[in-house]
Amino acid sequence: MKIAVDAMGGDHGPAPVIEGAMQAAQELGVGIILVGKQDELAAACQKLACADARITIHHAPQVVEMHESPATVARKKRDSSIWVATELVKSGEADAVVSPGNTGASMVASFFVLGLIKGVERPAIATMLPTLTGSAVMLDVGANVDCTAQHLEQFALMGNEFAKHVYAKPNPRVGLLSIGEEDSKGNEVTKEAFKLLKASPLNFIGNIEGREVYSGNADVVVCDGFIGNVALKISEGVADVIKKLLMKEISGSWLGRLAYPLIAKPLLNLKRKIDYAEFGGAPLLGVNGTTMICHGRSSAKAIKNAIRRAKGLAETRLDELIQRDIEESLRRHQDERPEGKQA
Amino acid sequence: MKIAVDAMGGDHGPAPVIEGAMQAAQELGVGIILVGKQDELAAACQKLACADARITIHHAPQVVEMHESPATVARKKRDSSIWVATELVKSGEADAVVSPGNTGASMVASFFVLGLIKGVERPAIATMLPTLTGSAVMLDVGANVDCTAQHLEQFALMGNEFAKHVYAKPNPRVGLLSIGEEDSKGNEVTKEAFKLLKASPLNFIGNIEGREVYSGNADVVVCDGFIGNVALKISEGVADVIKKLLMKEISGSWLGRLAYPLIAKPLLNLKRKIDYAEFGGAPLLGVNGTTMICHGRSSAKAIKNAIRRAKGLAETRLDELIQRDIEESLRRHQDERPEGKQA
Repeated sequence: MKIAVDAMGGDHGPAPVIEGAMQAAQELGVGIILVGKQDELAAACQKLACADARITIHHAPQVVEMHESPATVARKKRDSSIWVATELVKSGEADAVVSPGNTGASMVASFFVLGLIKGVERPAIATMLPTLTGSAVMLDVGANVDCTAQHLEQFALMGNEFAKHVYAKPNPRVGLLSIGEEDSKGNEVTKEAFKLLKASPLNFIGNIEGREVYSGNADVVVCDGFIGNVALKISEGVADVIKKLLMKEISGSWLGRLAYPLIAKPLLNLKRKIDYAEFGGAPLLGVNGTTMICHGRSSAKAIKNAIRRAKGLAETRLDELIQRDIEESLRRHQDERPEGKQA
Repeated sequence: MKIAVDAMGGDHGPAPVIEGAMQAAQELGVGIILVGKQDELAAACQKLACADARITIHHAPQVVEMHESPATVARKKRDSSIWVATELVKSGEADAVVSPGNTGASMVASFFVLGLIKGVERPAIATMLPTLTGSAVMLDVGANVDCTAQHLEQFALMGNEFAKHVYAKPNPRVGLLSIGEEDSKGNEVTKEAFKLLKASPLNFIGNIEGREVYSGNADVVVCDGFIGNVALKISEGVADVIKKLLMKEISGSWLGRLAYPLIAKPLLNLKRKIDYAEFGGAPLLGVNGTTMICHGRSSAKAIKNAIRRAKGLAETRLDELIQRDIEESLRRHQDERPEGKQA
């Protein structure tokens, strides 16, 4: 098993990416292909005393900056680390690609180089969220801003396979993110998606409200990429503000200051549970192959976790399972269509 | 100044509503008209030893249940406490209506009885959020699930007047909730709304991401009611989960348990800051008059705060200020329209 890692994309340069790759090679026994500028990566590896034979460097002369648009990347950055790393998956030299870089660049590289799974209309970024009872996967969280009900149905199918194999849940509970539990609640797209999901073979538990996302009522939370992205970012914002206010409250009283050393460890444990960086990246589902997108400011540990996750998805061949489900769903829709009517 | 209070709508019956009304009469010197079943309210008042001459009861024989749809309310519940309380505003007997009941019922009563401000296409529920630096208003959080860019522009104008007068900010910073700060980011509706807001006289600071909502970068956060409701509910969910996990972490270690009495007060202060029930209701902006919608499970304190807020909005005549801004905006659009073209 070999994982291509875009070593140039992170906010903090190649060092944390290489460190994470070193940890992954050591702990998981995977081969790692670091993709990026040969000289720079060789120097960084030397500095980090990286002498693991399982880690190799593959040269890519260009780098995608954080602000560059997907369109620019597709036109002008086909020699960039993210693009070249994705090509290694296409050619079979690597089994998965992991990038802590520009999310749009990862998406566009996977879209053009790996291509969409047959029948999939839109790929989706799936994020793992901590819940009171374990984890849930929410998708899409940013790949598509304007979605149809059919897109949401496909996201549900993809998230279902993900939850089955990653969370080892035989029959994941699939919820549709909406503004009320009643069937009739939602906007036009979610109301239509509700009907499609109800008619599907999924274990659809109906609409779920924002409040329930973190309670663990659903294993798969389906939404369009605009809502999903806002929901994800606002969650980070709330967690951030609570942390800051809590610190302010604690340090503002002498009792609090006295107690702080005692609660420092519980607070750190809490931070680990809600810090999505620890979760190690979000897969792009719906493409042929395994693409894992990480935060630009990923730590070495987050990179290692993303590599671990990518290895798992590649071993499961999640993309093939998704293809099977999507084909079944298309056949089902074909059968449901009244005689003589075209799609 | 008299406030009509729907005393039947709360989850916990009339008692907390009456208690809140008693506190408001005492502290704010306002007159209160408790609207609901005469016998029931009289008995509850007696039980609570409510002998304040500023508090009167106005009979309404029907009650709207939490599950009833707005359509049912409009057709069959015109003698309900919420409907009758709203009629008291229309007739001038009260200056504002406060209801802790069914949100849809409050909306539909205000819509039919008070009517929309001339030029306003859709009313919006505005919620006050705590931020790191103070407060912000977010709208719409649930009155409209499918919005156009023009609706969002009107929400911005309404939120702007609200922030000016309630937060005493002469030039509120208006942000559009989206998925990236760049002008080009967003879905079709927000991209179009971005252009309208940029061309408006508002202090438009551009797109803001979910993460920034609680950081205090904007005084007014504009979004459609679907997004706003999901964002609000997910914020509650995150806060809930953090609280539960924190308690679990703290009670799971002896150090934590030892420290708990020391941090109990900071935690309570924090809860007060993020508990929106303490903020005392969300106004329905865009109708002629002042309507304040509270949570069904509002405490007496939340009711008192909602009455205080309703009094402030009614004194400011916020509805008239909104009408002026909307009319100006319509004239501006009229002027911008090329010759010979109709709306």
